[in-house]
Amino acid sequence: MDPLKAIAPSDFPFDPSTVCGLVYGGRTIVRIPLKPDEKLYGLGLQFQGLNRRGKVYHLRTDHYSRGNERLHAPTPFYISSAGYGVLFNSPRYIDIYAGIGNRKDSPNLPKIRDRNTDRNWQAQPLSDSVEASVYGNGMEIIVFAAPSMLDVVRRFNLYCGGGVLPPKWGLGFWHRMRSLASDKEVIAEADEFKRRGFPLDVIGLEPGWHSKSYPCSFEWSPSRFPNPQDFLNKMKERGIQINLWENPYISPNASFYKAIKPYTGSHMVWLGLVPDFMMSQARDIFTKQHKECHLNMGVSGYKFDEVDGYDRWLWPDHAVFPSGTSGEQMRQTYALQIQKMMMDVFRSRNQRTYSLIRANNAASSAYPFAIYTDHYDHRGFITAVVNSGFCGLLYTPEIRSAQSGEEWVRRMQSVCFSHLVQLNGWFSNTKPWSFPEVEDRVRDTINLRIRLLPYIYTAFAHYHFEGIPPIRSMVLEPDYTDSERSENQKLDDVDNPYAEAIREDVTDQYMFGKSLLVAPLFVGETARTVILPHGKWYDFYTGDYVGNGEVITVQPSLDRIPLYVREGAIIPLLKEVEPIALMRCPIALEIRHYGALPSQTVLYDDDGENV
Amino acid sequence: MDPLKAIAPSDFPFDPSTVCGLVYGGRTIVRIPLKPDEKLYGLGLQFQGLNRRGKVYHLRTDHYSRGNERLHAPTPFYISSAGYGVLFNSPRYIDIYAGIGNRKDSPNLPKIRDRNTDRNWQAQPLSDSVEASVYGNGMEIIVFAAPSMLDVVRRFNLYCGGGVLPPKWGLGFWHRMRSLASDKEVIAEADEFKRRGFPLDVIGLEPGWHSKSYPCSFEWSPSRFPNPQDFLNKMKERGIQINLWENPYISPNASFYKAIKPYTGSHMVWLGLVPDFMMSQARDIFTKQHKECHLNMGVSGYKFDEVDGYDRWLWPDHAVFPSGTSGEQMRQTYALQIQKMMMDVFRSRNQRTYSLIRANNAASSAYPFAIYTDHYDHRGFITAVVNSGFCGLLYTPEIRSAQSGEEWVRRMQSVCFSHLVQLNGWFSNTKPWSFPEVEDRVRDTINLRIRLLPYIYTAFAHYHFEGIPPIRSMVLEPDYTDSERSENQKLDDVDNPYAEAIREDVTDQYMFGKSLLVAPLFVGETARTVILPHGKWYDFYTGDYVGNGEVITVQPSLDRIPLYVREGAIIPLLKEVEPIALMRCPIALEIRHYGALPSQTVLYDDDGENV
Repeated sequence: MDPLKAIAPSDFPFDPSTVCGLVYGGRTIVRIPLKPDEKLYGLGLQFQGLNRRGKVYHLRTDHYSRGNERLHAPTPFYISSAGYGVLFNSPRYIDIYAGIGNRKDSPNLPKIRDRNTDRNWQAQPLSDSVEASVYGNGMEIIVFAAPSMLDVVRRFNLYCGGGVLPPKWGLGFWHRMRSLASDKEVIAEADEFKRRGFPLDVIGLEPGWHSKSYPCSFEWSPSRFPNPQDFLNKMKERGIQINLWENPYISPNASFYKAIKPYTGSHMVWLGLVPDFMMSQARDIFTKQHKECHLNMGVSGYKFDEVDGYDRWLWPDHAVFPSGTSGEQMRQTYALQIQKMMMDVFRSRNQRTYSLIRANNAASSAYPFAIYTDHYDHRGFITAVVNSGFCGLLYTPEIRSAQSGEEWVRRMQSVCFSHLVQLNGWFSNTKPWSFPEVEDRVRDTINLRIRLLPYIYTAFAHYHFEGIPPIRSMVLEPDYTDSERSENQKLDDVDNPYAEAIREDVTDQYMFGKSLLVAPLFVGETARTVILPHGKWYDFYTGDYVGNGEVITVQPSLDRIPLYVREGAIIPLLKEVEPIALMRCPIALEIRHYGALPSQTVLYDDDGENV
Repeated sequence: MDPLKAIAPSDFPFDPSTVCGLVYGGRTIVRIPLKPDEKLYGLGLQFQGLNRRGKVYHLRTDHYSRGNERLHAPTPFYISSAGYGVLFNSPRYIDIYAGIGNRKDSPNLPKIRDRNTDRNWQAQPLSDSVEASVYGNGMEIIVFAAPSMLDVVRRFNLYCGGGVLPPKWGLGFWHRMRSLASDKEVIAEADEFKRRGFPLDVIGLEPGWHSKSYPCSFEWSPSRFPNPQDFLNKMKERGIQINLWENPYISPNASFYKAIKPYTGSHMVWLGLVPDFMMSQARDIFTKQHKECHLNMGVSGYKFDEVDGYDRWLWPDHAVFPSGTSGEQMRQTYALQIQKMMMDVFRSRNQRTYSLIRANNAASSAYPFAIYTDHYDHRGFITAVVNSGFCGLLYTPEIRSAQSGEEWVRRMQSVCFSHLVQLNGWFSNTKPWSFPEVEDRVRDTINLRIRLLPYIYTAFAHYHFEGIPPIRSMVLEPDYTDSERSENQKLDDVDNPYAEAIREDVTDQYMFGKSLLVAPLFVGETARTVILPHGKWYDFYTGDYVGNGEVITVQPSLDRIPLYVREGAIIPLLKEVEPIALMRCPIALEIRHYGALPSQTVLYDDDGENV
């Protein structure tokens, strides 16, 4: 059955006559009504907050810059708590006024108050609609209605082609080498993982594998990788995949520099050519070299860097491309173009990949790429993990370094409960065992992640076939009662001259797969509160009952990231940990059942590699 | 003689055939060549840095947000060290790539380096041109050439109508009341200034003078100002001007709400109507009430607030205005519209004003408004003072509060050597004497400012008639040797993954009038270096020789802001300090002459009030 049709039909969610469109002042403008109590979620890979209502978003692709508007993934899709979603399907920079900006002709105006004397005066009176605009003449708007917010997300993901089903190895442990590592160093590092008993499934090579980088040659460095085929064979014997870093900006030392030059933009990035991947000629030239020099030799994926920002080294919005695409359109969609191009190459080989990309946008749920980002605030990273599931995005809150063993463990715990478990030591050269006092805890954490492979792989199968994100904000859970609260702030003539209130959303816990609730701790914390949805919940580690529809306070030791399981949940785990690519059937499983309620579950399996 | 013609003619500064223009992707794009050693200055009221080369500027009007792009005054005008200036005369948001963004067809490409191994690899290779673009079809570009950078600035200012000559009282001491002060409180405060021997020329009333604010009624509060004419008379007797705060967003309680409603925009600000001042009907209705209820009664100026940003409470870029002006164009020019409108009202009364505004743009040098801003970083404030003179802007680094007496003195010293000396206690309710341990020092500082009135008024006359900014960056001085330096930074995978260098410009000293060099100190400092231009320099206070074209280190006490005077300079000071509006001829002067060189000077004077 068509999975889209399996979602119950819903009426169009609002009176279409209240939707307005207008072309004025060079912009296309649309207005969509809001009810007073609606909350809005989504709008890309956001590092702050959850409910988007009451803010302005200038959505554009860039590095993360501590705000809500320049984002690695500025997906112009929002989900309303009233049970519908709206996609502004435009490759332009989009300005979205999410329930703010009152019009004088609105029939639902807030009460006007006197700031001089009325303590209830508001700095930002909410409005009765979402207004969005782009430069240019036209924009497609797609409305997704469904019985619940989760079904809206599913409908959106299925409409976009369903979710990614990564190769199994992609869900294992990823480690990235320091930038200038040689083949010998990589092999020694892999063997060190084995010697110390740490799982390892993917090694990422950073810029130094290229003969030249920034701009890139895409050719193996003759000094650091004199015999790449031999190197890749040795990795394969060990069950370890090789992932190659690159940015797509082409050095004169690339073999295809001259061939691709006519199909590149007016401006360069780090003095490298910028391929116009809207042209099949550019795609063909680029992928032919990649197949010959990487994929045919055994490379399993890429990390596409620098496709986000900053402005000062990417092409300007006024850049000219031979396909006629504007610099702005190219900026908003470049990561999508690369993902589509590379996915097609892997598919043509009947090979799955799981790769990395530094930017994204709408309709990417089927692309086998996880985003990695700038920034290194642990809380912000977790907020992004929580928000990723609204918009069909995968994200890794990668770990790079830490100030202490405690921080190292806490970060390792949370990356192990994310879409992609990556240690990125390109600069810090950190290893899982770099903090000897917590080496055992780190190993246990990674082992738990690997042992959960059957459960996680099934979660991705649900994503693939039914559009259910493997990581979900609590507000997408049916039995969850939202507990955001708004706190008034003191007036301050430097930092808060309008005494604006701050809204506190729940951005530090989330669902992982069907039945696991993850509540990470941050450095310095020995206790935290966890909001449990209605229904009985159990401690993952002990099986103890912990609560039902309530706020609990937990004091876990440093050993454990708090994990809770629904009544009746069945969690399958591997009995043994080994490199995923070397696993052979039959595989021994441990099956855990929580609570007393009889239940059943689906355990999805396939060969884990082919398309 | 036409003062523009008094500036020596110059050739067009570059080969016109190297200037490119293009309309592509909805944008108008222009390219202007740069020589390798050119430095660029200007681009609005910048709070960071001096030389603009090598950065990207998305110039748009907004509150200050710690970057270079959303600015209170995003003037799209730059001055090149090669002796020319360029004005992008557009009411659009303008993106400017100031010597960055290399094109593949450039004949002057930097050397491509391998980041893997070449330590001289650069994160941001500089380009050979400035590229600017706006959305829309067309943009006027005006090039100003002159023998020196100062002459370029003069030419720009004179082209825009010359500089402001404020009324004399505008150059005195300004004090703002707490927001809800009553008439009695204002009178008592004025008398307290007199009792304590502090000069006072202007009192600003904050939102509480309105019967309603945010949005505003523009009517006197019957409870706080029951008899405004009587109040204004009492102020006049004391020689004190009254300045009224307002934002231009119209409350239903304004007498002209219904009349102006047809001439307002689609969106509201704090639920107040937004007048479309591009329509004469809106201007006439707005100014008629202001004349009747404020100016005819004796009000001498305004503080126009909230005409900058933030997005979340100003109208959106997609707002519709009855004149057909776009929301974006309105945003970029609203402060200019208000200044022009109010200046015309004052001129029609043969009355000068000196007023405040929170935003600005190009061609405002003739408007009698100084910018005041968000933000309260003392160093950033001084940087903005230094940068203001490039673009025909006046700015007050107003003081509001301080953490210590030392900070209070240091901030007071620097605001006393700015375009407008304002203490803004709307929230903090701070007075000049709020730090008793430094009360005498603060009084001395303000007295010095007032005593310098003849010198400062003459400096503004040079601005008015010759376009010479009263405050100038050192780089505009003919005998100054620029000493910017670039410092390499360490690679850091969180904050600086490309090891970008930081350029250190001289942003903490400036020329004030013809002959005074000001070198403010910041809290915590007991010494600083000062870069002296070539020629002999003397200490303002002692007359001692201090150096010639060299870097000196000075250790001034807390009493004094370091001030240095050129050889031969003649500085006129008032002998006595009293409210400027009560001064009557003849006025006794003290004339100081520095160094040994015989010289002459111009001392400008007029009635100081009429147009």
